[in-house]
Amino acid sequence: MNPRELLINSFKAAVNAANPADLIPQHLPESPKGRTLVIGAGKAAAAMAVVAENHWPDDAALDGIVVTRYGHGMPTRRITVIEAGHPLPDEKGEQVARKILTKVQELSCNDLLLCLFSGGGSSLLSLPIDKISMDDLRDVTRQLLRCGASIQAINTVRKHLSAIQGGKLAAACKAPILALIISDVTGDNPTHVASGPCTPDPTTYADALAILESYEIKIPNNVRKVLTDGSQQKLDETPKPGSFIFNNVENRLIATANHSLTAAKKFFQGQGIATAILGDSVTGEAREVAKAYAALVKEIRQHHQPWKPPIALLSGGETTVTVKGNGRGGRNTEFLLSLAIELDGIENVYALACDTDGMDGTENNAGAMITPETLDRTKKLRINAKTLLANNDTYRFFDKLGDLVITGPTYTNVNDYRVILVL
Amino acid sequence: MNPRELLINSFKAAVNAANPADLIPQHLPESPKGRTLVIGAGKAAAAMAVVAENHWPDDAALDGIVVTRYGHGMPTRRITVIEAGHPLPDEKGEQVARKILTKVQELSCNDLLLCLFSGGGSSLLSLPIDKISMDDLRDVTRQLLRCGASIQAINTVRKHLSAIQGGKLAAACKAPILALIISDVTGDNPTHVASGPCTPDPTTYADALAILESYEIKIPNNVRKVLTDGSQQKLDETPKPGSFIFNNVENRLIATANHSLTAAKKFFQGQGIATAILGDSVTGEAREVAKAYAALVKEIRQHHQPWKPPIALLSGGETTVTVKGNGRGGRNTEFLLSLAIELDGIENVYALACDTDGMDGTENNAGAMITPETLDRTKKLRINAKTLLANNDTYRFFDKLGDLVITGPTYTNVNDYRVILVL
Repeated sequence: MNPRELLINSFKAAVNAANPADLIPQHLPESPKGRTLVIGAGKAAAAMAVVAENHWPDDAALDGIVVTRYGHGMPTRRITVIEAGHPLPDEKGEQVARKILTKVQELSCNDLLLCLFSGGGSSLLSLPIDKISMDDLRDVTRQLLRCGASIQAINTVRKHLSAIQGGKLAAACKAPILALIISDVTGDNPTHVASGPCTPDPTTYADALAILESYEIKIPNNVRKVLTDGSQQKLDETPKPGSFIFNNVENRLIATANHSLTAAKKFFQGQGIATAILGDSVTGEAREVAKAYAALVKEIRQHHQPWKPPIALLSGGETTVTVKGNGRGGRNTEFLLSLAIELDGIENVYALACDTDGMDGTENNAGAMITPETLDRTKKLRINAKTLLANNDTYRFFDKLGDLVITGPTYTNVNDYRVILVL
Repeated sequence: MNPRELLINSFKAAVNAANPADLIPQHLPESPKGRTLVIGAGKAAAAMAVVAENHWPDDAALDGIVVTRYGHGMPTRRITVIEAGHPLPDEKGEQVARKILTKVQELSCNDLLLCLFSGGGSSLLSLPIDKISMDDLRDVTRQLLRCGASIQAINTVRKHLSAIQGGKLAAACKAPILALIISDVTGDNPTHVASGPCTPDPTTYADALAILESYEIKIPNNVRKVLTDGSQQKLDETPKPGSFIFNNVENRLIATANHSLTAAKKFFQGQGIATAILGDSVTGEAREVAKAYAALVKEIRQHHQPWKPPIALLSGGETTVTVKGNGRGGRNTEFLLSLAIELDGIENVYALACDTDGMDGTENNAGAMITPETLDRTKKLRINAKTLLANNDTYRFFDKLGDLVITGPTYTNVNDYRVILVL
């Protein structure tokens, strides 16, 4: 295989390791005495629902409703699939979330609630609490997504503006709950997948308010009133760790970045190439993380330490982009363009960075690739790499080069997959 | 040794490996037919001058003048030491630079110019070109130091506003030149130590102008005119690679970050602790680089890959801080506080980050240390780590904890030394 094929095939191995069809069946429980309600939210929700209903006994009482992103729906027989807005929530998602909450409230203790959560669920399963509107929630979400805040910080806010997340779905349910989770969040804490509808929430209204203020978000009046009232104990807090609410709840991780990186590692081993996993929970500004990795690559190339080439440096997690320009692009193309600039054409270094869900930010590409020739080729095309990076216009950069990686929706999501191949 | 002692002693090993007293003698050339003029600039200039004059034949014609930072002077016999401003240039530095340029112009081809350059020289050897004032230069330098620009970018500007840097000292000299260089710049390119008085300069006026504009620097009128005129070929460019000017010039690196990291590696090996050098040229925003390293530490602790503990992760280079708050602190305390927040008290992880010159930014500390207890201890002191980091107030954080590392001037400088000890 040539370097590009090695990169692409390692990415495929990483995505396949998070494929619901292979993962879900072994985790499905016994049918309960009563009925089973399947609910779900996330980019993988439809794909997970298909597998669940296909593997569930035909004669058992099963119905359900899951919400996924526009374009991520799939045909189902027993579970309804609705498409809604992501990364910004919309009224469609609000309607589904309200329906889900109502259905869950109807369950009894002989029933079972089977939840299928995956990345994107925080936006898709959006039900603003009484005192705020969908416009308020969307406004705050839009600002948070652009300011470089971590997903943990963003979800702290979401959980305190939601009537269903932050453990509130579990609080509304009398039936035992099993939540099967494909994690796209660094650290793989279930509270951050779909903003934890069935998990205890250790954060507070005051935390949420502090986050909005620290990022200088323009806070809508209704939102400020809710968070302020909540901070003064005038509103109920989200259910906290240790609460009896979670006695009959299991949140089970079935796919994580670590699983996928390990699959990529095995792929490279099969090709006789050593690997090093630099972390499955990498955060930080994409272009700055690229600088730290570029220094490591230079160390490997120049001093043959800490490893001799050839080696594949793997990492996962979720980097951030603080948008300053008005260009197009996601965190993976931002990472790669910064890396290309830092490496400045060093020979024998190739890299790929993609979102395992098939979508880098809000674009149609999963990510992109760089080769030692990337910058040289750009000069011939009269594209200024640094100017495009400064303008967060990294999609355009790789589009012009023909080096975007486009997969379409992968119907799963364990977050970023990055590989730097030093030959 | 306990973890704190391991960290401190590894730092001492790194600094000692860049000690002029041990390095200079082997690099001193034969005396020339004529006289020898020693000039120099940098935080190590006085220390280097002392060693040079002590090892030079007593009967040979030697004199000279070097400029170092306030507080970094040392008693000398034959070479004059002058103290001047750093990191912002001042009139004292301007006077010395003018005197040096004049003395160099008097040399003949039978003489020898011995240059002693080290970190800090770019500011200390500041001679604004005719059309701009020291105030103009200081104004631009102050803004550049605060905007997060790399040292390479800053020096591109300096070289085009200087009458002595960017190869212009070499251009003024008829004698052969030997420059002994202690490198504090990532990549160890001599053009960036003291802004390369004796090296070819590949950059242009247009590059300098583009850098100032990209960081939205308020450009003084005189400076803009110089850079614009230069871009339009109305002024002479700095001497470029390949120019005959450099035929009789040798720039020789005698100490680098790599030497010092290797010395620290040997120290840990002597203690039976494995090491990994993550790069000797790490750049990037200090707090973001810390996030990439925190993910690596978590990978090591949780998954025992890519290394099993115990391991010491070493790195060098020069991170940057984009100042947004009004607190006190340098890039090493900024790196450490971000690292502590990301690690959130993970056990058995210790770290030290120090500038090998003994001064982190403009403070009196070389750097600081963190332990697994750092955040817990802060809570008891009612210090909010995140708030202080947001305000770039990281000196205060470690000062309150008593965890600053204070060495005083080390009289050398191979840039940052970072070690994360995962036990």
